[in-house]
Amino acid sequence: MKTRAAVAWKAGQPLEVTEVNLDGPREGEVLVEIKATGICHTDEFTLSGADPEGLFPAILGHEGAGVVVDTGPGVTSVKKGDHVIPLYTPECRECDYCLNPKTNLCQSIRTTQGQGLMPDGTSRFTTLDGDPILHYMGTSTFSNYTVLPEIALAKIRPDAPFDKVCYIGCGVTTGVGAVINTAKAEPGCRAVVFGLGGIGLNVIQGLRLIGADQIVGVDLNPAKREMAERFGMTDFVNPAEVEGDLVPYLVNLTKGGADYTFDATGNVQVMRTALECAHKGWGESIIIGVAPSGAEIATRPFQLVTGRTWKGTAFGGARGRTDVPKIVDWYMQGKIEIDPMITHTLTLDDINTGFDLMHAGESIRSVVVY
Amino acid sequence: MKTRAAVAWKAGQPLEVTEVNLDGPREGEVLVEIKATGICHTDEFTLSGADPEGLFPAILGHEGAGVVVDTGPGVTSVKKGDHVIPLYTPECRECDYCLNPKTNLCQSIRTTQGQGLMPDGTSRFTTLDGDPILHYMGTSTFSNYTVLPEIALAKIRPDAPFDKVCYIGCGVTTGVGAVINTAKAEPGCRAVVFGLGGIGLNVIQGLRLIGADQIVGVDLNPAKREMAERFGMTDFVNPAEVEGDLVPYLVNLTKGGADYTFDATGNVQVMRTALECAHKGWGESIIIGVAPSGAEIATRPFQLVTGRTWKGTAFGGARGRTDVPKIVDWYMQGKIEIDPMITHTLTLDDINTGFDLMHAGESIRSVVVY
Ligand SMILES: NC(=O)c1ccc[n+]([C@@H]2O[C@H](COP(=O)([O-])OP(=O)(O)OC[C@H]3O[C@@H](n4cnc5c(N)ncnc54)[C@H](O)[C@@H]3O)[C@@H](O)[C@H]2O)c1
Ligand SMILES: NC(=O)c1ccc[n+]([C@@H]2O[C@H](COP(=O)([O-])OP(=O)(O)OC[C@H]3O[C@@H](n4cnc5c(N)ncnc54)[C@H](O)[C@@H]3O)[C@@H](O)[C@H]2O)c1
Repeated sequence: MKTRAAVAWKAGQPLEVTEVNLDGPREGEVLVEIKATGICHTDEFTLSGADPEGLFPAILGHEGAGVVVDTGPGVTSVKKGDHVIPLYTPECRECDYCLNPKTNLCQSIRTTQGQGLMPDGTSRFTTLDGDPILHYMGTSTFSNYTVLPEIALAKIRPDAPFDKVCYIGCGVTTGVGAVINTAKAEPGCRAVVFGLGGIGLNVIQGLRLIGADQIVGVDLNPAKREMAERFGMTDFVNPAEVEGDLVPYLVNLTKGGADYTFDATGNVQVMRTALECAHKGWGESIIIGVAPSGAEIATRPFQLVTGRTWKGTAFGGARGRTDVPKIVDWYMQGKIEIDPMITHTLTLDDINTGFDLMHAGESIRSVVVY
Repeated sequence: MKTRAAVAWKAGQPLEVTEVNLDGPREGEVLVEIKATGICHTDEFTLSGADPEGLFPAILGHEGAGVVVDTGPGVTSVKKGDHVIPLYTPECRECDYCLNPKTNLCQSIRTTQGQGLMPDGTSRFTTLDGDPILHYMGTSTFSNYTVLPEIALAKIRPDAPFDKVCYIGCGVTTGVGAVINTAKAEPGCRAVVFGLGGIGLNVIQGLRLIGADQIVGVDLNPAKREMAERFGMTDFVNPAEVEGDLVPYLVNLTKGGADYTFDATGNVQVMRTALECAHKGWGESIIIGVAPSGAEIATRPFQLVTGRTWKGTAFGGARGRTDVPKIVDWYMQGKIEIDPMITHTLTLDDINTGFDLMHAGESIRSVVVY
């Protein structure tokens, strides 16, 4: 079949919206009509050329929601008409990783996914001239129709609005999951969140959800304050306005250090500050941000010997097929909010505007509705 | 009263064994006759002058065992004749730290202990001329008689031999505790231990105790192999004999990375290797070694984002009054071994020989018996 898609031909160039060929689903694969997709920093990272593992030409996009149109042989967990969210971190429920309760990093299709291919080592996308186009993160939600492995689809309730719950495909789950799966933060805790963008806001609402007592937000941009307060931030700190070192300031503000701190900036110096303002004895610091290639974190080992723990999280530690449907339920029940974070809704033809808004820092999330 | 003690007058000088004055125990304090004391790297670190927080003149020593001789007013948990192990990490059971199950770092007397003083801000030791001598780590076990706060004493069974169980006052508990309290390692795990000295050997026997499947020991000194095997090491790696990078070698040896890794060298480059050979998704690396002042650990944050955790441990995460008596029981029951690690037994007059043996790498533990 043919489908409209935004193709990334090369690093550093705008996407081109055009028709491409899409082969039907093979064994264990599913054809999905994407109804909406968010535009996330990770797409930007790859498109810019900064991602050393980025491959081109490819169809980007990994934060979508849609409907199953067709299933290949052997598919049992979803059927035509099911509403689904694509998962860039799949959940096969069979590999060593899926069987270990300590991780969500299913490895069953990792190699081919990293090469921009389906598990059988081929791509379903080609140009109208027949030249191959690669998949991206196993999802390629910047195409109106896309093919995914069955294990990379979370089946969700049919009454959830696509243009909102697509955000659960990455940002919401990453932020909320960092709190509940990775930190396993408890009611009454004190926390500091660095970076109040699309991820940081979701960390904040995750902390509100679990009943944190203090939620400090740190951002260089004072315009981020209002929205963060709306999601539950109790204290705002602008590092540019703090005299002297930020660490003692935050330790003091949290009465001895935070129980949990989160980096949602991707800046390695911020990651160090986040670790060091965690409470002696038990504070945990969780890295969510993706640092520039080659950048390193550092600290004195004494920080760890005196009881701080340094962790990271990918996709919020969520097992997508199991956890994503629950987060959709929480949204539908009003336990978490998404609507105010979707600041811009675009058509596929305007997808490059979404990247412009991101660069200008004007959007929290832009969503393309097909 | 008067007591014989080894006094550290200045950094970088041998200890002087001499008579000193010792005041009796005040409110909440206990007079203990030390029967035996180990000589540990931390004593050496302070004596050498490398410890920026080292204070002189002081009576060092923190790995002892002895008998209660007298108690000050208000002491209820020990009485004359009780056998005890001094605790450089006390356990008051009342401070915010003691009441938080995630830490063992009781803070109730931290400030005065760091100043070489008893909790009331004074020292019990003076020279025969009446000049003050400081306590060290709240324990000063290089004195035949010493005064300690009640909360810094673990009461142990009376049939345990002082010249062996003194080692539980630091090295044994640090190593075994790192496995059971900090890592909470499970039966069947794979582990890598860096540094096969007094601490590393105890990590190894801790891993054997909890039923680890694979215990890899890493040391530059091949002479460490035999003893480590005797304590349960299953594979020995000499980094000097590995071609290429040590990380992939160890990942391969542990079939994908170790579930738990431990640094017992104090070398920050080794700490990095230890983190990076931990298993993707769930591996935890625990820093035990104390690094030179100012040295920093570093890694790419991607190591943490892909599921590795970086931690540290002090006194093996043990709550001394609660956990040390249990470890003494395990020794008496034969669950852990100590005797082969006590390679040298000395008199107080020969205490400087113990430091010489340590420098020469000839001892695992030298114990002074009074
Ligand atoms: N680990 C994962 O699974 C995962 C998933 C998605 C995104 N991410 C990463 O999370 C990070 C945040 O993503 P986002 O979409 O929220 O980005 P964003 O650009 O919307 O937000 C980042 C925020 O950090 C603030 N900031 C930047 N430097 C700062 C500093 N030095 N001090 C304080 N604040 C600072 C900015 O003002 C901005 O508000 C990115 O690095 C992204 O790649 C990680
Ligand atoms: N965290 C705590 O509570 C605590 C308590 C006691 C001791 N310590 C620290 O633990 C560390 C170990 O103490 P120890 O008494 O076992 O010391 P040790 O000197 O007996 O043993 C260290 C071992 O590490 C080996 N080693 C050194 N550099 C190495 C390298 N680059 N690669 C591989 N092996 C290397 C040495 O050959 C030696 O066998 C010290 O730093 C000590 O200060 C920490």
